[in-house]
Amino acid sequence: MDIHDLTRELHTPSGSKIVMLVADGLGGLPLKPGGLTELETAQTPNLDELARRGVQGYSIPVKPGISPGSGPGHLGLFGYDPIKYQIGRGALEATGIGFELQSNDVAARCNFCTLAADGTISDRRAGRIPTDQSAPLAIRLRDIKIPGVEVFVEPVKEHRFVVVFRGDGLQDDVDDTDPQRTGVPPLDPLPNDPGSQRTADVAKEFLAQARELLADQSQANSATMRGFAARPDLPSYEEVYGLRAAAIAVYPMYKGLARLVGMEVVGHPTDLSEQADLLKRHWDDYDFFFLHYKYTDSTGEDGDYESKVQRTEDFDTILPRVTELNPEVVVVTGDHSTPAYLKSHSWHPVPTLLVSDCCRPDGLTAFNESTARLGGLGHFEAQYLMTLALANAGRLAKYGA
Amino acid sequence: MDIHDLTRELHTPSGSKIVMLVADGLGGLPLKPGGLTELETAQTPNLDELARRGVQGYSIPVKPGISPGSGPGHLGLFGYDPIKYQIGRGALEATGIGFELQSNDVAARCNFCTLAADGTISDRRAGRIPTDQSAPLAIRLRDIKIPGVEVFVEPVKEHRFVVVFRGDGLQDDVDDTDPQRTGVPPLDPLPNDPGSQRTADVAKEFLAQARELLADQSQANSATMRGFAARPDLPSYEEVYGLRAAAIAVYPMYKGLARLVGMEVVGHPTDLSEQADLLKRHWDDYDFFFLHYKYTDSTGEDGDYESKVQRTEDFDTILPRVTELNPEVVVVTGDHSTPAYLKSHSWHPVPTLLVSDCCRPDGLTAFNESTARLGGLGHFEAQYLMTLALANAGRLAKYGA
Repeated sequence: MDIHDLTRELHTPSGSKIVMLVADGLGGLPLKPGGLTELETAQTPNLDELARRGVQGYSIPVKPGISPGSGPGHLGLFGYDPIKYQIGRGALEATGIGFELQSNDVAARCNFCTLAADGTISDRRAGRIPTDQSAPLAIRLRDIKIPGVEVFVEPVKEHRFVVVFRGDGLQDDVDDTDPQRTGVPPLDPLPNDPGSQRTADVAKEFLAQARELLADQSQANSATMRGFAARPDLPSYEEVYGLRAAAIAVYPMYKGLARLVGMEVVGHPTDLSEQADLLKRHWDDYDFFFLHYKYTDSTGEDGDYESKVQRTEDFDTILPRVTELNPEVVVVTGDHSTPAYLKSHSWHPVPTLLVSDCCRPDGLTAFNESTARLGGLGHFEAQYLMTLALANAGRLAKYGA
Repeated sequence: MDIHDLTRELHTPSGSKIVMLVADGLGGLPLKPGGLTELETAQTPNLDELARRGVQGYSIPVKPGISPGSGPGHLGLFGYDPIKYQIGRGALEATGIGFELQSNDVAARCNFCTLAADGTISDRRAGRIPTDQSAPLAIRLRDIKIPGVEVFVEPVKEHRFVVVFRGDGLQDDVDDTDPQRTGVPPLDPLPNDPGSQRTADVAKEFLAQARELLADQSQANSATMRGFAARPDLPSYEEVYGLRAAAIAVYPMYKGLARLVGMEVVGHPTDLSEQADLLKRHWDDYDFFFLHYKYTDSTGEDGDYESKVQRTEDFDTILPRVTELNPEVVVVTGDHSTPAYLKSHSWHPVPTLLVSDCCRPDGLTAFNESTARLGGLGHFEAQYLMTLALANAGRLAKYGA
């Protein structure tokens, strides 16, 4: 069962507006037994006010116990089954640096590496060569020419870069060339089906030319490729929900993920205040707005509990700029939890709040892990959040007579 | 996964009785922020008493955010996955007027319409011709004879009637003939697969003869057909649960839905009191009793909050007549919510109560949206309610050794 089989048939026109505010990594943990989570510690008067009018619950990003990356975390929030729809590593890496993948692209994550004189790998990351040295080398690789294929090379960070091959007939089931250990030569890019033979040939040619272009380097004298992946084939927001959707995000990864489901990326904001400006400016142009806030995740990843509390409070201050526009539906959630205690994404359910005039308020007066656990939305899989938002927005017809 | 794959193997004989009381559209909403729902407002001492002995929870009719019609709403309560099992429009319409569909039937919803002199539709509903004029015209159409096929024509209301073709080799994948707009001729009934060719031919012949029989009419001088559908192929209560089941309902739709899963329809009650009489009279004849109460839905559909409160209180008064029979399991639920605030079926979870001697009571002392949200059954999909009822009735063996 795919919930889109229902929404595709049931979505119905409306003038209503939905705003989904994603505080990345929103959920947390106490630092010690008996303590409070980051969200419980933060002073969030605006979230508390929304809680009084709304209904909350626990969003399970994928399945209980599964900690998602940003890709499946956001696909879930966007209503796409994150197990059915997977974004290959290469495609996600390209998306994350803002590369707009097309349907005839295959992307791969690449590492500069060091080959010894005997052709075996002596360092899989070329001594973690710093970005200011690796980026010019990546750009040098743009000189590579392969007949019938466009080649894009984009620097990432340190030893990492991205390659995208664009052309007809390229499929992506090609094995990694990184052998995952040193003392052996790089592997050939081998196809796993006949349709991927052309991509494997192109990759082999790319790697051969790269080795020539890097021959003068002592450290980064070769490269490996991993995670060959085409653009995932995701049905669009327009098709499955009938929504004209806008993404208002600061970081390329989240713009890219939104583009994959057919959202339009609006503006070039650098902070929440500019995101709120853009929301107001484009209010009449779209039905659905996805606003992404990064710092509840990055502070969690840093293990910086105090900063995560502060960043949560910063997030709270922007809420009146959203509610003053009177959207029919406001959703506040996260794509996963990032407890400072764990310094990583986690599997914990994410406190999630929905406010509309017909949301059946649950009488809770704050918004955090302790309240959300008891809320009227219950514990639900993230992939149903969009269906709930559409229903509250009056955008889903009755199923069956 | 179909839960019937388990229940079919695990059901076990017992002398226990299960009563499922369905208050249609049971859940509601406050009329304004901070207010109470209809069920929270109603004085329901008998439900409160059951709540003290029972366990409650939130039943999600289909999936979060999906508002079901009566068909999927009841299929869920009966334990049939409402997405896997769909009842076609024509079959549901025939069921709703009490027509007993057989396995070799194809039903269609029909409209009288007005054709202009040039053969195009000038009114898709024949001026919404009143029932006292349309019903005799529907009965006139019973004169239509088609070799090898039995034809049934049943009046519904205003411009609507139902046609059922009965015969071997009739499949139902035939397109609607209503073009959904005026100024164009009706469409031909076209088959979408070879197996439906015969039905399409029969429908075409039916429509041709109808036009002749209606030639003297100025408004209702032709007809269109929509929603061709065979009887859905639902496994029976006897097969999947080992239950002899009785339906005690006032309205044809709910009798019909119960028949589709193999329940026997008992008596011709006109109100709850007569339904309780029938329950007592047939107590020894069945294992499972489905009692349907309509007015919590119809008052909600009317947007009449006060009447819904009153009808909820009326429902409450009948409960002692059920409990005095000492059923092993009593379930109180609804097929969906119908908040007066929305004047329609909604997606909100339905307060649901189960009482048995082994239900693990959750200590709640009332029964409404606020209590059910926190109850021991949690938030669960309606399709699992029957499994819970069977377990509490001692009618399911252990799964696996």
